[in-house]
Amino acid sequence: MEGHLSGGVVVVGEDAKQRFHDSRGYGIPKKGNEIELDPVEAAHLLLRGDLDNIDGMDFIQFVSAQKPDFSAQFSTYLDLRFRGFHLTPVGASNNLSSSNIDFTVYERGTKPPDGVVKYELRVIGERSTIPADQLGEHTLAIVDEEGELTYFNTTEIEPNGKKQFLPPPSQGILLTDKVLLNNPDSTFHKEGFFGQHIPNTPHIQLSLVEAAYLCNCGSLSTNGNVLHQGRKIEGDLFDHRLSVYTVLRKRGLIPKTGFKFGFDFRVYQDFNTTENVLHSEYLVKVIKSKHVFSTKELSLNVRLAVGVRKRTLFAIVDGSSNIRWVLVERVTP
Amino acid sequence: MEGHLSGGVVVVGEDAKQRFHDSRGYGIPKKGNEIELDPVEAAHLLLRGDLDNIDGMDFIQFVSAQKPDFSAQFSTYLDLRFRGFHLTPVGASNNLSSSNIDFTVYERGTKPPDGVVKYELRVIGERSTIPADQLGEHTLAIVDEEGELTYFNTTEIEPNGKKQFLPPPSQGILLTDKVLLNNPDSTFHKEGFFGQHIPNTPHIQLSLVEAAYLCNCGSLSTNGNVLHQGRKIEGDLFDHRLSVYTVLRKRGLIPKTGFKFGFDFRVYQDFNTTENVLHSEYLVKVIKSKHVFSTKELSLNVRLAVGVRKRTLFAIVDGSSNIRWVLVERVTP
Repeated sequence: MEGHLSGGVVVVGEDAKQRFHDSRGYGIPKKGNEIELDPVEAAHLLLRGDLDNIDGMDFIQFVSAQKPDFSAQFSTYLDLRFRGFHLTPVGASNNLSSSNIDFTVYERGTKPPDGVVKYELRVIGERSTIPADQLGEHTLAIVDEEGELTYFNTTEIEPNGKKQFLPPPSQGILLTDKVLLNNPDSTFHKEGFFGQHIPNTPHIQLSLVEAAYLCNCGSLSTNGNVLHQGRKIEGDLFDHRLSVYTVLRKRGLIPKTGFKFGFDFRVYQDFNTTENVLHSEYLVKVIKSKHVFSTKELSLNVRLAVGVRKRTLFAIVDGSSNIRWVLVERVTP
Repeated sequence: MEGHLSGGVVVVGEDAKQRFHDSRGYGIPKKGNEIELDPVEAAHLLLRGDLDNIDGMDFIQFVSAQKPDFSAQFSTYLDLRFRGFHLTPVGASNNLSSSNIDFTVYERGTKPPDGVVKYELRVIGERSTIPADQLGEHTLAIVDEEGELTYFNTTEIEPNGKKQFLPPPSQGILLTDKVLLNNPDSTFHKEGFFGQHIPNTPHIQLSLVEAAYLCNCGSLSTNGNVLHQGRKIEGDLFDHRLSVYTVLRKRGLIPKTGFKFGFDFRVYQDFNTTENVLHSEYLVKVIKSKHVFSTKELSLNVRLAVGVRKRTLFAIVDGSSNIRWVLVERVTP
């Protein structure tokens, strides 16, 4: 059977409607038995030998004649078909319009037009970038330089925890990048998980972000202005990190440094005492809303969290009190 | 016992030489029983109660009076002493001079002046940066915002593998970001681990860097200039990645994409056939010699590799054919 190019889509006649559309979910029915195929669908049928040629072109010739972004689209289509999914290209060919979605993927065992939608997929090559403010809108399919696929679900969430605690007021001494407390109330660290003990002493040292939060809550006073010191060292990043820390605490979550993982915070959802610390749930990175991610950066951050059984949560800040919390997780369709 | 400040060091008399230096490795002997202590050593003795005060200052007062970088230095000193190490500050106080080393750390059970040196340690705070061209020179002690320590060994190495293989010449078709091969020699992928099969077909797709390497070796010809296409997409990064890929192959190592881990390449030291792929040994990131690492970036890259049982190898390129291979590994002293 042959296909014919017509205005960017491939038209197939004969029994194409029954053979390709009705039973296997390819294309859009047109007049009679004719269907219109997106080029990725047509290439797939060529590759399988279900189509003999398209205007005389074989698979290699047809693929060579496509637009630059065809390659990533086709790799994704191929991968998902291979995994047993039905999926529909979202493009001019079927009159669906969406700026950021490339494929509608249906639950296994269902297919268009009535199937259950499992993923709204956006396809990008590994050399593309993703603006932070678009995270949370869709599932990403990233095609690496060897044509392999990585899928990331991005979801906006509202993180919540169970621990609300403020220690009684203390007095601290502001040093360059920390605040020292001389023998504070025992609940300070043990119940609130604030600061770290200096080994074998009753002294506690607080990070500047912990100290600034406690100052704002009225639980700490120091000999200097912690907020000014934080800004002096980190610039406006300090304000962003403090706002993320503050919201997490207010939501009953416990943020501690995430440095060992290359993140801003590791975050506990619950906590009894320091003698019984649960596994932290999230690794949080503070990201400015104007930030543009490279795909490699996303891959690195998400893969790391998986390796330590945590979840990657980006706190996307825009300078207002508004924070978008976007979970990015690798999925295997 | 009391100490006295004198030109940036702390002088202690009485039986200080016997008590602190000879038996426990603190300070440098001066006239009689007197020793000179670096401020971190003095602070440690104050904290332990071995010194009562320094010119009337208690621990908190003495620490508050120190320079900005004291805090990170002291956290490191404290951590290593706590772990049972003897260590000596490398500074003006003992006439050793080195621009980048802060502490000489001795093997457990040995101490200065005759001890066995285990680490030449450079201390930095988590907000500092590390120029790529300094990696490989020393062990890094990074103090995070909560005062906790992370240690990274950085070592220059010469990676080597066992697999030398070039496939017989093939003809490929250059697409935007890959090269398609129609039914190439079966050794191509199976023996050389070049490219990926398009599922259920004899076609193979090569990444541009694989294709450019094979073109340079005379094992591939295509309908277009792969090097030009690579540069068009990646700029000079393509040349850097190609030179790293080429040297790895020439050294008998097999580089494949490291995208899933957020790296440039995962690298196998040996390989029989694709039916028997060993665990890859290194994750390689190509870094320009002018690059300056943030500590968080190092932490993220190194921690990820640990989680997937690989080793972080930075290929530091300067545009010449010279590549410095620097292994960065987290160590727990």
